[in-house]
Amino acid sequence: MSANQQMAANRINISTEEKRLIDQMLLMDAPTRTTLSQALEVSPAWITKSITPLIDREILEETGSAAHSGGRRARTLGFGKAVGYLLGVDFGATSLSLALAGPNRDILARSHTSIEIKDGPGICLHAFNEMAQSLLDEINLEKSQIRGIGIGVPGPVNFTTGRLTSPPIMPGWDDYPIPDVLMADFKGASVVVDNDVNMMALGALYHGEGIGANNIIFLKIGSGIGAGIVCKGELYRGSIGCAGDVGHIIVERDGPLCHCGNRGCVEALAGGLAIAQEANRIARSGESQELSRMITSEDVFLSAEDVGVAAAQGDLASLELIDRSGQYIGEMLTHLVSFYNPDLILLGGGVSKIGHRLINTIRQVVLKGASPLATRDLRIEYSQLGEEAGLYGAIRLAQQSLFQVFEDNDVSR
Amino acid sequence: MSANQQMAANRINISTEEKRLIDQMLLMDAPTRTTLSQALEVSPAWITKSITPLIDREILEETGSAAHSGGRRARTLGFGKAVGYLLGVDFGATSLSLALAGPNRDILARSHTSIEIKDGPGICLHAFNEMAQSLLDEINLEKSQIRGIGIGVPGPVNFTTGRLTSPPIMPGWDDYPIPDVLMADFKGASVVVDNDVNMMALGALYHGEGIGANNIIFLKIGSGIGAGIVCKGELYRGSIGCAGDVGHIIVERDGPLCHCGNRGCVEALAGGLAIAQEANRIARSGESQELSRMITSEDVFLSAEDVGVAAAQGDLASLELIDRSGQYIGEMLTHLVSFYNPDLILLGGGVSKIGHRLINTIRQVVLKGASPLATRDLRIEYSQLGEEAGLYGAIRLAQQSLFQVFEDNDVSR
Repeated sequence: MSANQQMAANRINISTEEKRLIDQMLLMDAPTRTTLSQALEVSPAWITKSITPLIDREILEETGSAAHSGGRRARTLGFGKAVGYLLGVDFGATSLSLALAGPNRDILARSHTSIEIKDGPGICLHAFNEMAQSLLDEINLEKSQIRGIGIGVPGPVNFTTGRLTSPPIMPGWDDYPIPDVLMADFKGASVVVDNDVNMMALGALYHGEGIGANNIIFLKIGSGIGAGIVCKGELYRGSIGCAGDVGHIIVERDGPLCHCGNRGCVEALAGGLAIAQEANRIARSGESQELSRMITSEDVFLSAEDVGVAAAQGDLASLELIDRSGQYIGEMLTHLVSFYNPDLILLGGGVSKIGHRLINTIRQVVLKGASPLATRDLRIEYSQLGEEAGLYGAIRLAQQSLFQVFEDNDVSR
Repeated sequence: MSANQQMAANRINISTEEKRLIDQMLLMDAPTRTTLSQALEVSPAWITKSITPLIDREILEETGSAAHSGGRRARTLGFGKAVGYLLGVDFGATSLSLALAGPNRDILARSHTSIEIKDGPGICLHAFNEMAQSLLDEINLEKSQIRGIGIGVPGPVNFTTGRLTSPPIMPGWDDYPIPDVLMADFKGASVVVDNDVNMMALGALYHGEGIGANNIIFLKIGSGIGAGIVCKGELYRGSIGCAGDVGHIIVERDGPLCHCGNRGCVEALAGGLAIAQEANRIARSGESQELSRMITSEDVFLSAEDVGVAAAQGDLASLELIDRSGQYIGEMLTHLVSFYNPDLILLGGGVSKIGHRLINTIRQVVLKGASPLATRDLRIEYSQLGEEAGLYGAIRLAQQSLFQVFEDNDVSR
């Protein structure tokens, strides 16, 4: 059996009509038959008819009672045993996070460790396997009970194959068959791989500030800068999966050299690494007493967060550094607002912890540069989910990908 | 009866299942029952069952025979009399174009005139009415036979209401109820209004180079610069309808003042008006003999196209002017390619007639600035539809908007 065949066999087959119901279930929190029939604009009879076989197959189950509102208590519905357990995985450049969730995406255990993604898939997936096994042991599960695995990685992904495409910071991962390798261990799982920022955007869309928004730009400002794009309530990956590669938008024609080979990319001027490098230069030059004081020994390397701390104490050089970053990021976002007219921009990633001054500057720049119409209803916020966003998104995508329409069931035939 | 009620009454009610069929019909050229069943992945029996009532209602009809491929000739299907005639309308800043089409979007008559959009809706819609009447007279039709009108306008549109939202070059049109006013004359028509570049993108998607592409940026380079965006095969209008407002993306931080109030917008540096103004300055300063020769009298004002002509004759100043425009437009497009990862960029509008050198420069700049992955399969082309694109798009949108799902027919109830 090929890996593709195994993947297909591991998925749960449903009919077109059942898919409509499942898709709606994925959007709602503890729905009842009544709230489902209202949301789908179909009769209660249709709901009952469609739900019964799904309950029989343990794909859905009755999970409890909705709040009392007179009359009989309605039973809430959730996903059942057949959906099994789900693993959400977030690979960062130097970190690996896992969360193990039940059929209703309730997180049961989680774990976090340091890795170097550039050590390649052999070492990194071994670390993943060990962590996954510990989580399973923790709550007494077998590998075979995992039905879905969602993995976020810091590079461009061909979503159809689940393989990375020429990832700049991930040597050895190019075209590596992650799903196939994982399915050799997790034989009953459907595996889905996507870019880490796409996972964050999904997490925000379903579990965070993105609920109810249609068109979202989730901007991750970490060492690098990248965006996840939601279009009409769905993730948009672009024509070959590299949409949102906004870190290399040029904001200073003769700016510093970027690792991509061009000059003046926003990542090279305003990303976490750029801020940290400039902070260390300033600290060692003596231009800021505050930053210099933080260099307690030769091998201390200040981070972007340290700049946030110094700025909070009124250090002028740090304030200027944050304003400059905000200016560049704001200019880049202004381009995107003019083009895309989103209703929500969410900022995440390590640098978003630098404090309120950064987002304040970004908002000012966007309000000045974009048209009043495009910013009329636009919200620009820090994502409150923080590092959880990627894990929530990965679990969500794992569950979504678990269902496939079994064409012979198609009622319209 | 309110205008909204009239609009609803003028539309053709179909069921959810019929909509699936109609949507597919809109994508195909002279389909047969067999090609439709293949495209929709449904049984021939389902097609026959669904088509019969539509033919009875004259919404569809058999239009001819498909090419012989052995056996019985299959009958091709098209839209029928109930769909009536369609009007496509393209309002420019200084021009008005109309095309009258039959139920299958076959253009039967067309007309073009000069107007000033800034004269306001009273004068402009009067001109439209007179032109429409002449077209109807030309082929002996009554106003009541027009079932759909699609109108492109050079400003941001609230697509739900069909009204313009603070259009910068259209004084008097803000929030003007175009559909309501038109329906007072065309009592049986469904009227739909959209931004002119959106109409062009739709035209290219269905009738031009965009066929088969998923994610398209249609860039109109006229006096101003704007984009129509296709996302996953559908028009994307943004959260409040102003997506694609790319003319005001800033490409030169301390550039010339733009009419939007900011400095260095790409429109103010590389749009048709900017090119023309610079050409006239150069011609009058004597920096280019070629351009100076074209100023045959005091009141000659050179156009962007004149610059193209001079460049073709080897005029260095004109070549530089075109290269500079290409550089700015290319830089702006590079931002969009990094963010959006489209598979196709189409260039239209008057300045696209300036010749091959402009697109050559644009391609070079994008290839240099964007990532190799994002440009791997990217095509950048002039749209060959030219000014027709907007009319084709308007007719297409008029027809699409003519159908509405009649909810009580929903088979799932």
